[in-house]
Amino acid sequence: MGYDDDNVFAKILRDEMPSHRVYEDEQTLAFMDIMPVSKGHTLVIPKTKGENIFDLDAESLAAVIKTTKRVAEAIKKALEPSGVIVTQLNGAKAGQTVFHYHMHIIPVYEKAPFQPHANDLEDSEILASTAETIKQTLLQ
Amino acid sequence: MGYDDDNVFAKILRDEMPSHRVYEDEQTLAFMDIMPVSKGHTLVIPKTKGENIFDLDAESLAAVIKTTKRVAEAIKKALEPSGVIVTQLNGAKAGQTVFHYHMHIIPVYEKAPFQPHANDLEDSEILASTAETIKQTLLQ
Repeated sequence: MGYDDDNVFAKILRDEMPSHRVYEDEQTLAFMDIMPVSKGHTLVIPKTKGENIFDLDAESLAAVIKTTKRVAEAIKKALEPSGVIVTQLNGAKAGQTVFHYHMHIIPVYEKAPFQPHANDLEDSEILASTAETIKQTLLQ
Repeated sequence: MGYDDDNVFAKILRDEMPSHRVYEDEQTLAFMDIMPVSKGHTLVIPKTKGENIFDLDAESLAAVIKTTKRVAEAIKKALEPSGVIVTQLNGAKAGQTVFHYHMHIIPVYEKAPFQPHANDLEDSEILASTAETIKQTLLQ
């Protein structure tokens, strides 16, 4: 198996599928997870093709973690979680469902402990509103 | 609250506490988690002081993710897990227990699904043996 050019995140990168984007630079893109485990659950992906950590070079990995910090800071300011989990899954057995490397940023709230990955799609307006809040904070 | 120079990982870095080391370079150190959620559970830490992702600069974060990839590759070769989870917790509410930034590398096995963080210390000989297996693979 190699990298599938038609995976969902490849399509989002090519703008063939909609997403709630919060940040983009030359090497990375950040957007809302549509099945969030908590409010503000955001994904950061590299623009280079790679299924997992084993496929990516050090430069792409560094770009992703740099953007992850930047977006996590905005989430912290905008949504005031009590903690933030940063996690990245490699392989279906590890829970990976989309085979383009992606870092999860999962805010944790005192009164809303995070759940295993939701089975329901989040309402698009809610995602758009959360994305806007994070984006505005990034612009500050 | 600031960074506590007497946290367990700071002591490990200063060699004031023992650890099962698998890899070290100028900027990072990797060693076995003593309460592993699965066989081969390894931690990667920066040598710079910082509690969490918000405290570290881009260079330290890049160094940690580069070492994480390197050690994850060795774990993959040495222990043949069916998947690998890379995760990093920020804040007590997110599950962080040692307040020196650390990346978890957690192998996932088909027949031994990973458990929430174990409550028991792993046998030191088992950790030493696993560390040796990973170290040998890094030297290949």
